[in-house]
Amino acid sequence: MTGCCERTILVPSSLTMETRDLRARTLKVGLIARAAAVFRYDRIVIYRDPEEYDDSRFMREVLRYMDTPQYLRRLLIPRKEELRHVGILPPLRTPHHPLNSKSSALKVGEFRVGAVVESVGSDNGVWVEIGVDRPVPLVADKIKKYRPGQRLNVRIFSLDPLAAEPVDNKNIPLYWGYETEVVESLEDYLRAAKAYVVLTSRKGSVLTTDLLQEVGRLGKGDLAVVFGSPARGVDAFLSKENMERHCMINTIPHQGTETVRTEEAVFATLALINLVRLEE
Amino acid sequence: MTGCCERTILVPSSLTMETRDLRARTLKVGLIARAAAVFRYDRIVIYRDPEEYDDSRFMREVLRYMDTPQYLRRLLIPRKEELRHVGILPPLRTPHHPLNSKSSALKVGEFRVGAVVESVGSDNGVWVEIGVDRPVPLVADKIKKYRPGQRLNVRIFSLDPLAAEPVDNKNIPLYWGYETEVVESLEDYLRAAKAYVVLTSRKGSVLTTDLLQEVGRLGKGDLAVVFGSPARGVDAFLSKENMERHCMINTIPHQGTETVRTEEAVFATLALINLVRLEE
Repeated sequence: MTGCCERTILVPSSLTMETRDLRARTLKVGLIARAAAVFRYDRIVIYRDPEEYDDSRFMREVLRYMDTPQYLRRLLIPRKEELRHVGILPPLRTPHHPLNSKSSALKVGEFRVGAVVESVGSDNGVWVEIGVDRPVPLVADKIKKYRPGQRLNVRIFSLDPLAAEPVDNKNIPLYWGYETEVVESLEDYLRAAKAYVVLTSRKGSVLTTDLLQEVGRLGKGDLAVVFGSPARGVDAFLSKENMERHCMINTIPHQGTETVRTEEAVFATLALINLVRLEE
Repeated sequence: MTGCCERTILVPSSLTMETRDLRARTLKVGLIARAAAVFRYDRIVIYRDPEEYDDSRFMREVLRYMDTPQYLRRLLIPRKEELRHVGILPPLRTPHHPLNSKSSALKVGEFRVGAVVESVGSDNGVWVEIGVDRPVPLVADKIKKYRPGQRLNVRIFSLDPLAAEPVDNKNIPLYWGYETEVVESLEDYLRAAKAYVVLTSRKGSVLTTDLLQEVGRLGKGDLAVVFGSPARGVDAFLSKENMERHCMINTIPHQGTETVRTEEAVFATLALINLVRLEE
């Protein structure tokens, strides 16, 4: 999160419909997470595909697992049968996933994702696990609002004594991972969206450098990039009225294959948008 | 193959070094094949990484398996333990992978990948398996040069009687898959290459639309795009002299993750080049 604007990817709950193999499904969702992180997107929205297999629960779990720093996974993510192949997922290796370290190596001003491990105990304090050798006490105004198991971002406040303070996502000048959300209807979501919306579809306008530069200009603020399902293009999920409000682009013109998989289209499209967002 | 020019991707033999899981390795190689097909590349060259685990044999087998039409796999690809997870690979769905069909549905002029099933038999003829209900006789000048098990491209020559003629790759006006090759040294390969070479590296020049348009202009003919290994950038494989001859580009500037995986970089980079190749 760089403060100024939010970048969102929207994918259907039927993303994984083509394979029943749990490992392949896990890896497929993992690629969406990787794409979001590589291109610094702040939010992954899973919209419900009413006609196909709904895998949103599994997708959300894998996406949240991947966004959670390794040192907090045992604390924050319950063991589930569905997550048995997460070991083969590539790590994100983002700034919010530092390697475990010693508390003596911390620096004042350093940001960490933490989880409350003890709250309002005998010493009336809140302690936060941040991936160092011991939990760190929290310095905060309203200490009572924190409950054990809660995830929160902190900033190292002082070293001696070691203490951390809560910090808002918006005030962290680094890419800080993505949030995951499931929405019932793409139609309703886009109708309410304030972001500049790019619909990706084979039926869209062929992307040119001119068109891409326009996307870079118009998508400078909040940006939402929408991908269709393996079975149906984005147009199948939207009313004509909603379709006309947004630009629909074919980001892989002259494709050599009959179909392009969603995870492939995500990498291709975000790479193209990345080119022009940096120039604006 | 569109006749005019050849597009090549170069990846290291250490592509899969980060995972021992055979399914994950299979899928990783599968993504390279998918990228080649989606963006219509004619050749995948695996160059030897002398310092890391050499997986070129496995990579070549998976790549060749994927490029072989389904109806020829049993005939052309021996069963191997290493290929036990190929079932989870996505199909290419390219024009050279038609679904099996009836011979009565064939059209004169149609192209097919075939395999010789019988050669210079009692009838002195050559028969080719092309994925229809029965092998088709071949019409060719020098019938003796064909041996059973040989792969060859054919064109339907006549329907009654049904016959096919051999055809050169270059004369097929459709994307016709890729060839796979293993080379000992990237340095030597690039020194001899006549293609316009793009080296991709985090250390390269930040890609801009101007630079991308230049790549499109200079890479209009033969084009070779080189990717580094998970452990080392392309510069580690090349002499200073060779490096200076080619342009080195960072196609994913401002990446949110510490590393970008080769298969991710391949999709991103080929999508960017695809944008400008079409405009020239």
